Amino acid sequence: MLHHSLINPKSIVVVGGSDNISSPGGRVLKNLIDHNFKGELNVVNPKKEKVQGITCKELNQLPSVELAIIAIPAHLILETVKVLTETKQTKGFIIFSAGFSETNEEGANLEKAITEQIAKFGGSLLGPNNIGVLNTNFAGVFTSPIPKLDVKGVDLVSGSGATAVFIMEAANQIGLTFSSVFTLGNSAQIGVEEMLEYFDVSFDRNNSSLVKMLYIESIKKPIKFLKHARSLVEKGCKITAIKAGTSDAGKRAASSHTGALASSDLFIEALFKKAGIIRCFGRHELIYTAGVLSNKQAGGSNFGIITHAGGPAVMLTDVLSKNGLQIPKIEKDHQEKILNEVYNGSTADNPIDIMATGTEDQLEFVINYCDKHIPEIDAMVVIFGSPGLRSIRDAFKVISNKSKSCDKPIYAVLPSVVNTKNEISDFIEDNNIAYSDEVILGSALAKVYNTIKLEPSVYPSELEKKPKIRQLIDESNDGYLSPNKARGL
Amino acid sequence: MLHHSLINPKSIVVVGGSDNISSPGGRVLKNLIDHNFKGELNVVNPKKEKVQGITCKELNQLPSVELAIIAIPAHLILETVKVLTETKQTKGFIIFSAGFSETNEEGANLEKAITEQIAKFGGSLLGPNNIGVLNTNFAGVFTSPIPKLDVKGVDLVSGSGATAVFIMEAANQIGLTFSSVFTLGNSAQIGVEEMLEYFDVSFDRNNSSLVKMLYIESIKKPIKFLKHARSLVEKGCKITAIKAGTSDAGKRAASSHTGALASSDLFIEALFKKAGIIRCFGRHELIYTAGVLSNKQAGGSNFGIITHAGGPAVMLTDVLSKNGLQIPKIEKDHQEKILNEVYNGSTADNPIDIMATGTEDQLEFVINYCDKHIPEIDAMVVIFGSPGLRSIRDAFKVISNKSKSCDKPIYAVLPSVVNTKNEISDFIEDNNIAYSDEVILGSALAKVYNTIKLEPSVYPSELEKKPKIRQLIDESNDGYLSPNKARGL
Repeated sequence: MLHHSLINPKSIVVVGGSDNISSPGGRVLKNLIDHNFKGELNVVNPKKEKVQGITCKELNQLPSVELAIIAIPAHLILETVKVLTETKQTKGFIIFSAGFSETNEEGANLEKAITEQIAKFGGSLLGPNNIGVLNTNFAGVFTSPIPKLDVKGVDLVSGSGATAVFIMEAANQIGLTFSSVFTLGNSAQIGVEEMLEYFDVSFDRNNSSLVKMLYIESIKKPIKFLKHARSLVEKGCKITAIKAGTSDAGKRAASSHTGALASSDLFIEALFKKAGIIRCFGRHELIYTAGVLSNKQAGGSNFGIITHAGGPAVMLTDVLSKNGLQIPKIEKDHQEKILNEVYNGSTADNPIDIMATGTEDQLEFVINYCDKHIPEIDAMVVIFGSPGLRSIRDAFKVISNKSKSCDKPIYAVLPSVVNTKNEISDFIEDNNIAYSDEVILGSALAKVYNTIKLEPSVYPSELEKKPKIRQLIDESNDGYLSPNKARGL
Repeated sequence: MLHHSLINPKSIVVVGGSDNISSPGGRVLKNLIDHNFKGELNVVNPKKEKVQGITCKELNQLPSVELAIIAIPAHLILETVKVLTETKQTKGFIIFSAGFSETNEEGANLEKAITEQIAKFGGSLLGPNNIGVLNTNFAGVFTSPIPKLDVKGVDLVSGSGATAVFIMEAANQIGLTFSSVFTLGNSAQIGVEEMLEYFDVSFDRNNSSLVKMLYIESIKKPIKFLKHARSLVEKGCKITAIKAGTSDAGKRAASSHTGALASSDLFIEALFKKAGIIRCFGRHELIYTAGVLSNKQAGGSNFGIITHAGGPAVMLTDVLSKNGLQIPKIEKDHQEKILNEVYNGSTADNPIDIMATGTEDQLEFVINYCDKHIPEIDAMVVIFGSPGLRSIRDAFKVISNKSKSCDKPIYAVLPSVVNTKNEISDFIEDNNIAYSDEVILGSALAKVYNTIKLEPSVYPSELEKKPKIRQLIDESNDGYLSPNKARGL
């Protein structure tokens, strides 16, 4: 199990920290400082007295330290780990360095020795050959960008460090907020299975993030993977994942990359289905899906599409409809009430198109009307772009406000990535997600709405079930249960 | 047939031109001026003496004018068109105004009268209810952005003006260059069929663009559509298209939007297949596909993947391989030659991964080696991102140079849209396309390589065939043809 010092360390030592912020050791130190790590920060660098304002210590001189972030050549690491585990009570280890099992047998042996040394002292190792860990407590990665963080954001677990960076970059463009990012590198001790175990066992209904995003190259323990993934889903979490390396050529590629043992496509399909995981294949698809999962949940799969630009609404209607979701025709009576409030020429059978000339007040009226008065609509997609004639900031403000106040979820497609670049930034800044492609969103919506249960479906976990089952049985004095109690059981 | 005054007008009048650049009439005038329209520019605006530096004329005072761009209320247009057709020899018409067949029957009648008036004088009408036309001769649209233009770029024909804008915005991000943009609005006279006819009949092997991108809501004349699309493909053009409104709900949506008569999905599938059109469903998919089509053509479908970041290479390998393209294992001998030149730990079985520490010189060596020495590789995808430690401008420069000098096509995936934002801009500025998502690119590559003939396949057009056929027959004096000649026939 992942040691808590990798989550919320009181003290960190950067071994190999330097002033060179183009090096992993220098950059992680800068990230920790810039993003306000509140605990004690130490640096080990035998060549320097002071690094980024911090006086360096020799390894032996360090006080007790909970987490070590190591960025020195591979051959020096075992000795360092020995000192830290044996004399400094260090339990958490992040090793950026490469040159281990991904390189050759010698590296694999070294990796094994380091992992055993850490395990012997009850510690946890993330990596080696990763980019680190990032959460609301500390920015323990040597990369940029550092995404928007919030404890209720999305948890990302990635087998590949670079892929985690590229996911964060793409996520940055649509405004996805993260709770944590864990990169596994060679997964010497902590693989995706152990991460799911950690999320599962530490799950706290009130404080844990409910959305997990996984980039996986290797599943070594499918039973463990299934157990914890399924348990998380039963507790109300939603998981979306890419398992790369499932084609024959892809398996070879994955094996070269992180020494991963690959699995067949059918096996992954079955495993994900059983676990309740929403499967994706690419980065943008993954972040769109995580975005949809981060929104409030609709009570059904009937969509209202609201726009002032017909084309994207037609393409979205096609993709939703072809994937089994509904865009119900709005009843004449409701149509008339909507058409009374918008310009002549608008249409309201669904999609509702208020035309290029439609105002933000009309947009607000339509969104409100769909939210409050049309029970046939469970969720709304609002598509709003601009030909560049004038600012549409007020319309985006309406979408932002309504996304927060409406009962039904709203998904915002803002396709004008050039004409409304600044307005989209502000929209994202205001804690919204701005999708740019309606068809990728439509696919993500279909994946989500065809997988998750649409009624609030928070099942009690195994542990919580037991006393309830016992109680139900105990209530039966004569050995018989009433039909109601039998159903409860 | 589209009148040439809509392509290269010597003179333009903007009817309804104004100083208000937030209005269509004001903005199109600004676009024409800013983008250096070389011909004579007139403005009709009864309320103003001078508009954007141009002295306004009354309609009757105008000299002969080839193209009219009209941005006045619908009910004033028929009269204007009468004057222009009957007394000013105007043949080209672009009508931005709405309030025609998309609104009600009265509008439909007005649209019909205007169209007939223009047709009577042998003129061509684009619209009404569109955003205009754009090519290397003139920026006759009222929207932004104006994309990168080049006569050998991509031709875009869009039934929806807003969709054309959103396509140009998305295209702007990856660096797709356009030859022309035609928006059809209500397609009163010129529909997608007439546009294909125009491209077909005016096709000039040396000067015409070879890639067409279509966003279609309505195909009214499928036989004509098929004839010209197929003829263009036979001449060596490549066409990729979205036909929106093919689901039941989507048909309703398309009909509301531009009054389009929708067609069934199966019909479109068959039509596109017969025409040789590559079908897409979303905007990003469309521009990625057009990007692939704009590149030089490979001799086969064996891909080499070159990267310094394993994850995206694995995902790309999966998507290519699942869609029938090959990522052949590189022979041991070649692998050794590559591995000799890169850092220890790199892999070269394909994907070739030079690791995060790989240099631009190593990248250049590997690209060159694949281009010159590995006949099993027909095309390369180079994936290069950055964790943000240092600039990778030099690596991008290598990819840019090699894209131009290599015999085999190179597709560049640059996923670091945040960390290398400026470097990607420069890469695009340097006449390259930068894809950001490897899996969307992989799907586009599969669509293209599974559709187009891989050997250079420029067939003679019908007209060119005829004399050859005649010659073959004439060469047979006794009425019999040799097997060779029969095959040629």
